[in-house]
This record gives sequence, C-alpha cells and structure tokens, in this order.
Amino acid sequence: MAENDFLKWLTDHHAISDASVLAGIGEDDCAWVMTAHGDNLCITTDTLLENVHFTTEATSFDIGWKSVAVNLSDLASSGCKPCWGTVGLGMRKGLGEEWARSLAEGMFACASEYGLSLVGGDTTSGAGPASITVTVVGSPYADQPVLRNGAQVGDVLVVTGALGGSILGRHYRPVPRFDEIAHLLATDPTGVHACMDLSDGLSMDLPRMMNLSETGALITEKYIPYTSDAKELAGRDGKSAFWHSINDGEDFELLLAITPSLFDILEKNWPDNIAPITKIGCVTADQKILIHMADGSTGPLLTQGYEHGFN
Amino acid sequence: MAENDFLKWLTDHHAISDASVLAGIGEDDCAWVMTAHGDNLCITTDTLLENVHFTTEATSFDIGWKSVAVNLSDLASSGCKPCWGTVGLGMRKGLGEEWARSLAEGMFACASEYGLSLVGGDTTSGAGPASITVTVVGSPYADQPVLRNGAQVGDVLVVTGALGGSILGRHYRPVPRFDEIAHLLATDPTGVHACMDLSDGLSMDLPRMMNLSETGALITEKYIPYTSDAKELAGRDGKSAFWHSINDGEDFELLLAITPSLFDILEKNWPDNIAPITKIGCVTADQKILIHMADGSTGPLLTQGYEHGFN
Repeated sequence: MAENDFLKWLTDHHAISDASVLAGIGEDDCAWVMTAHGDNLCITTDTLLENVHFTTEATSFDIGWKSVAVNLSDLASSGCKPCWGTVGLGMRKGLGEEWARSLAEGMFACASEYGLSLVGGDTTSGAGPASITVTVVGSPYADQPVLRNGAQVGDVLVVTGALGGSILGRHYRPVPRFDEIAHLLATDPTGVHACMDLSDGLSMDLPRMMNLSETGALITEKYIPYTSDAKELAGRDGKSAFWHSINDGEDFELLLAITPSLFDILEKNWPDNIAPITKIGCVTADQKILIHMADGSTGPLLTQGYEHGFN
Repeated sequence: MAENDFLKWLTDHHAISDASVLAGIGEDDCAWVMTAHGDNLCITTDTLLENVHFTTEATSFDIGWKSVAVNLSDLASSGCKPCWGTVGLGMRKGLGEEWARSLAEGMFACASEYGLSLVGGDTTSGAGPASITVTVVGSPYADQPVLRNGAQVGDVLVVTGALGGSILGRHYRPVPRFDEIAHLLATDPTGVHACMDLSDGLSMDLPRMMNLSETGALITEKYIPYTSDAKELAGRDGKSAFWHSINDGEDFELLLAITPSLFDILEKNWPDNIAPITKIGCVTADQKILIHMADGSTGPLLTQGYEHGFN
C-alpha cells in the first residue's frame, strides 16, 4: 500500500462528523476548519525525512528553510496567507548543536520572509535519520480557501513558474506562490475553481486534481514551461526536458483551474514582479488525462511521479 | 546542547512580534494565539520516535493512541478542550500496510474518545526509525488558557492521579486530564494559577514551572502519590517507589499551582468518577526547589528526569 491508497483508506473509514471541519483528510493540501466566531482557518503539515527529502550535503539552514517553505506552499495553494506554525523535530544524535541552531535559523528566516509566526515545537533525538514535521495555520485571502476539487469542464489549466529539475538544488528553496494566488483571487475570486501545489510531479498531481473534480484534462506538451534545470538534467540522462518537467517532484509551483474569462484578464495584466503563469491545457468532461504531444499524437498522460510506499 | 538549552536559545533569539501570538515558543505546553474575530486557540505538537518513545514491541494501535494522547495531555494542561489535529508520519519501510492501518486506527480511536477531529496529515517513508508528529489545536474551557508561569507564592501544588513506573506500559495509554482541569476551572477559574503535564518526571518538570513563575517550591516526600508500577519497579531495581514517582517520565498527570481557598473547596467536593488530586507541597518565595524527606531532612530536589540531547 502506498500513500495514495492509505489516504483513500483513511477517508473511507474515518469520515469526520464535526460541523467545524469544512474539508478534512485526503481532500486537499490543507484541512479547512471554522472557529467558534466564524474565522476560517487552513491547517497543513508536511514531514521531511533525512535521505528522502534532504541530505546533510545541504546546509541545515537550507533544510530548515525548506521544511517551512513546503508547508507555506500548501497554504498558498489553498489561497491562504500564513498565520502560525509549529515544528516537531526528530534529531539524529550526532548532528550536533550548530546543525540544530542553523536549522532553526533557516526555519525562522523563511517564516519571517513570508510573515509566519513560529509559535511552538517539540525537540527529540534518536538514532536517526532526522525527521522534521512542520505544521502551519493560515487564513484565506478571499472569503474561503481554494480547494483541489473544484475544476469545471472548460476551465483553463495554468501553472506558475516553470517545472522540472528541482533535484539540482532548487527544491531546498521553494518559493511559496503567495503573491501569485493573491493576485488571482484579488482579480476574481469566483474565477479560481481549483488549485494545488505540484509536489510529486505534474503527471501525478494533475490526475489527483482531476479525479477529485470528477473531470478530465487535455494538456499540450509544447505549452509546458520547463526550467533550465530540467534541460540540464536532460542533457545528462538522455531524457527530455519535457519528461523532467512533468515527472520530477518538488517544483512547488501552483497548478490552477480557472475560468477562461479570468485567464483572459490575467494574460493582459499579469504583474512583472511575480512569477509568470502559463496555460498548459484545459479541463474536459471525459475523465481521462490526455496529452497532445509535439509529434501531433494525443494519448494518455503516464504517471511517473514519486509516491511514498510502506513496504 | 540539550532540549532545554535549545529552547532557551530559540526564545532568546527569536522573540515574536505578532499581536495574534499571546504565548509562543518555550513558554508553555501550548502556544496561545488569537484569530481575527477574537477566538483564543492553543496549538501544541509532540514528536514520538521509534526506539525512544515507542518500540514495535507495542501494538501499532497503542503507538497511534499514544501519539494523539500525549498531545491531548498538553491541551488539558493548558485548560483547553480538543478541536482539530494533524499527523506527520515518517514510516520506516518494512513496517507494512497492516502496521500503518492499525496505527491510524489507534490515532482515530483516541481522537474520537476525546472529541478531537483529525483533519489532515502527511505520510512519508524512509529507512527509519519511524517518527510520528501530531499537532493539535484546542480552545480554552475558561476565558483563556492556563499557563505554566503563573504560580504564586503561597499556592498549593497538586498533582492528578499517581506517579512513576509508566515504562511498564502505562505510557502507551496516557489519560489526558480533561475532566479534572475542566472541574477545576468550572469551580474557580481565577484560582488556577499554573498548570503543566508531567512528561519528563516531577523532578525535572517542577523546576521548569517554578523557574518560569520566578518562584520556588517545597514538596514533601510522603505526600507524593506513586503508582503500583513505581512500587513494582522499585522491587526490581532497588530504588524506592518515591524515586520512581519523581524521576520517571511520561506520567502525563497534571501538576497545578492553585490557591489554598480553591484547594479547600476541591478537597471537600472532588468528584468520585475522575482522577484524584493530591497536595504535594506549596509555592515559596525563595527560588529553590526543596523537598522535605520522610527522614525529617529538607534539601534540594535533584533533577534526574529525562532530557533529549543532540550530541
């Protein structure tokens, strides 16, 4: 059983009957809850494991930054701004005091950069590998959070930035796309139907959004923006930059389903000082995920992204 | 550097300037924040590591239960009832599907028992040991949470339940003392000055509360309630049941500083169906932690509880 099946089992077996929970496990990047006086909050958590999500070849400052930034990316993808965060740190004995201090410095630097207050945590130590779990709470820019499951037939699919090759180092410094989602929501909150951040690769994450929305998608190879890192990797391993752009994980760019009319407005007025958005395809009624290739053929998008297994 | 020093360094170097944060890192079991419309919330997180806080000799159901219960204990100690929780799971590859399912069942069973909604999580897997970080949000029973740092000279120190020997198995099934703190607060919220849960042993945790409160304490050996487990362990290792009651970790009982007048009321009317409370001493002006021993001598309480180190 891998992560997707486990989440499905959890949601099937543990339906939440709590009026304060508006979206729970498995449905989204974030859970969405409401306080007694009607404040909407989003909560999300991400765990980084040594030798899976980071190695000590990176500085612990960068590792700390990443541990906070990946959670902030989830908040951004839910259309929320940061409020408060906590850290659960499982240190590997031997990493030492300076490593831990620099890790904390990286966490606080990232939190400060994006307006998150780190308010609590727990520090433990064992034989390792190290584990870092950050949990953050945010509040929506608009009236309510943006979910994954709202894509509608005819929507335009867009991504922020460019994709692929984060393994060359960019994955330690993901940029949560707060400015971009805030601009989208300020332009027309009703035109943003679905959003998620790309953590496991477009070829795995796009089907997730479409499955939850009970829609399909048609994307076009030549539209997909790839990074110079994707090109660099392609030069090394013989795969294409396109292959890396759809299959590499940890881009932390946003994938959005928005109305064509909102896309038209955005295309003409997108600010220069934030990451670009690119139309990569559209949402279809047929629940298939198709890709139109540069050679003129159209076929199913094959999933080759990364999934965590238990066995 | 160990956990206490690391927390001190964090709080010294990263003061929070955020009006929505009323109590942050290092000050308490929980952080205390306020939402836009004035709802007080407490947030806390605890990380359990395989071979430190649990071993696979225990059932994964019990491990799951514990991972939630220890966080609920922090909420109870802050005078808060449970709202929402998230789970960050770092699986060790090889633990397998059934282990993970049963772990989740234990988490959900504990959450359900105490009215917590588990709303989200993240599942990863690596070489292990496994790590489990649960984060919970709660709301105060009274107007505001109870902190650790409010003990006042002349207060009565009380503990719930009995202490020591949790290593014999009780540490997998801690009972968050919601009923007990709720009864205290319903009786007289202004009489409850400070509270914390005993996770690292009374001899380590009592000085923490007194240091934060800038007070001292005088406790009495013969008053300290010990469990049958503490007696059992004493029979095996030649230490006393008293030694285990003050030095063993993971009791998850509450330590409170309350007014003498509240204690008088409680002593006469404590409900039969919840854990007893016992007076163990009083809060003093002299910032020393003293213990009056059964042999008539009085001296400093020596700290022998458990502290996580990084080296």
